Amino acid sequence: MSNNSGPLTYAKSGVDLEADSRRTERIIHEVSKTHAGTMVDNLPGGFAGGIRLPEGNQTLVACTDGVGTKTLLHSYSGTFQSAGMDVVANNVNDLIVTGATPVAFLDYIAMSGLSEDSVVEIVKGVSEACRLDGLALISGETAEMPGIYTSGHFDLAGTAIGLVSELDKFRIDEISANDVLLGLPSGGLMTNGFSLARAALGISGEELHDKAMLQNRPSLLEGDSVGGWLTRPHPSFWNVFKQIKDLGIIIKGAAHITGGGIAGNLSRVIPTGCVGVVDVTSWRRDQIFDYIQAQGGIELEEMYRAFNMGIGMIMALSKEDSRIALASVPELVELGKIEQSDKSEKVILSGVTL
Amino acid sequence: MSNNSGPLTYAKSGVDLEADSRRTERIIHEVSKTHAGTMVDNLPGGFAGGIRLPEGNQTLVACTDGVGTKTLLHSYSGTFQSAGMDVVANNVNDLIVTGATPVAFLDYIAMSGLSEDSVVEIVKGVSEACRLDGLALISGETAEMPGIYTSGHFDLAGTAIGLVSELDKFRIDEISANDVLLGLPSGGLMTNGFSLARAALGISGEELHDKAMLQNRPSLLEGDSVGGWLTRPHPSFWNVFKQIKDLGIIIKGAAHITGGGIAGNLSRVIPTGCVGVVDVTSWRRDQIFDYIQAQGGIELEEMYRAFNMGIGMIMALSKEDSRIALASVPELVELGKIEQSDKSEKVILSGVTL
Repeated sequence: MSNNSGPLTYAKSGVDLEADSRRTERIIHEVSKTHAGTMVDNLPGGFAGGIRLPEGNQTLVACTDGVGTKTLLHSYSGTFQSAGMDVVANNVNDLIVTGATPVAFLDYIAMSGLSEDSVVEIVKGVSEACRLDGLALISGETAEMPGIYTSGHFDLAGTAIGLVSELDKFRIDEISANDVLLGLPSGGLMTNGFSLARAALGISGEELHDKAMLQNRPSLLEGDSVGGWLTRPHPSFWNVFKQIKDLGIIIKGAAHITGGGIAGNLSRVIPTGCVGVVDVTSWRRDQIFDYIQAQGGIELEEMYRAFNMGIGMIMALSKEDSRIALASVPELVELGKIEQSDKSEKVILSGVTL
Repeated sequence: MSNNSGPLTYAKSGVDLEADSRRTERIIHEVSKTHAGTMVDNLPGGFAGGIRLPEGNQTLVACTDGVGTKTLLHSYSGTFQSAGMDVVANNVNDLIVTGATPVAFLDYIAMSGLSEDSVVEIVKGVSEACRLDGLALISGETAEMPGIYTSGHFDLAGTAIGLVSELDKFRIDEISANDVLLGLPSGGLMTNGFSLARAALGISGEELHDKAMLQNRPSLLEGDSVGGWLTRPHPSFWNVFKQIKDLGIIIKGAAHITGGGIAGNLSRVIPTGCVGVVDVTSWRRDQIFDYIQAQGGIELEEMYRAFNMGIGMIMALSKEDSRIALASVPELVELGKIEQSDKSEKVILSGVTL
């Protein structure tokens, strides 16, 4: 499955996270040139950007992301509606970790030779996910791109727009020792790590072979086929956030667990002098992760770097607030806590040897 | 070049505008389901959507679009920075035809195996175009998608966000007989019609062949190679709009001339009881259009349906305002006028037999 020796890694599957971060630095340099003289507002969470509105006291928040190579699996499985739900949830989750309330969405579908019905199914999924989260789908683009995409394939991205007041912005600098880390289950891969998963499972881009492969029901996976597991819609965590906010509870900071895994994403909201300790035995890892690991011969450390491993969102709350939240929101899982630390390491995964 | 008899058409090149519009109807049905109970605001212009902000009196306006298969030519020509400028201008122009002032931008780059330098060049172009138009580049995504894109290829989309007050919204219902149509030169294809252009010119996706083809300097094209013409950045018309607004002149309505050409786009802003008459002899068509037509054996009617034919933006102004604008803004071209009409046809191209 890999052309080098040693176990399969994300880099060998075509996605080099280290090269990514080098490129990101150069990109940020270019991006910052556009901020002089504008009302750009810095926000926590890592992905969404903000700009203060000239009237009133709110900041407009927006972020953009796609669903990655998961589209390939949706094409083979015919789960176009789930693809639509993926792109909304992936963006909404990036948006709400700033403290913002999502208000609008725009979708971008680029494809070659996708049937009219398939495109409409994608939009149905986008529309349904927007409705569930209270977003208005205000515009979108469907681009026919022969020659760029293999016929029948598509890319799907979107932009979520929200609003946040100064008061509602998450204050990650107030995260401190003894705060509790609560998690929300991902239920599967969400939309990250698919290039590695495809390499591990031998999903090669040959339609007939891949379709058969996705229909497999190996004994390790209960209740669903490989394809069923891999095409599950990315859950949006907005309704849980709302529920928590309605309890009068303050979320100090939150991290959407995307590429980079728990450590890579949670580290962005851990202030200097602190470390987030996550006990990985505190939740039951979805079987699909064990299956991918076994099939690809992937080292556990790489698994935790590429996949969410069962946790889609992590938030930091005070001890008192976490008790109220845990008692009121059954989906929440207590993962660990914030500790004092003078080391550079921001996240420790306990209960596992990596 | 085409597998059917008869001249080359847009549909034969892989883009079926009629199927597009059928699909669009079904999409709009899904989209409208998300609007109940939200503050969605209808805007003129056709592409951007809006939502009224809860504080103050402004409407947030946003639109999303890519640069289509022009990315293929940018890859072969190495003009990645121009690609970045394309995506900003294409979106800004869709945004400002509502009357909005653009404030922020987000970019989405999806690719496989594009070099770090190429990606940074794209972002440089995005950043430079944002700076020229006063937009803050607030976020973005760079997605590595092996297996979806041919190595070295990319897709590039973006979202422009702006603000508009009730007073500044263009009022296309006030467009009436004797209003004047003014145009702004496109300088080339901008970002539409590339699938047809590629089919006409035999740009097949074979790298070596295509690179040589793009370096051609046929006698019909003055001053630049085929590739030079085709990769010119999409011009943003925001600075001209600002200039006109600063003169105290009211733009009643404006149409960004994208897929569908002059008639397809201008028709969206012509109210019932009126027709827009555009004299196509009033500007000098860029040579690239004649070259594409000759090479592809494309009928003139199809050319006007697929390409902007040299005009990138059309706006409707009162007769008095148009005189002031023409005297003050040298780029403006007088194209024709609005006439009374009880026919269903919204745009007549005069000076040409189609």
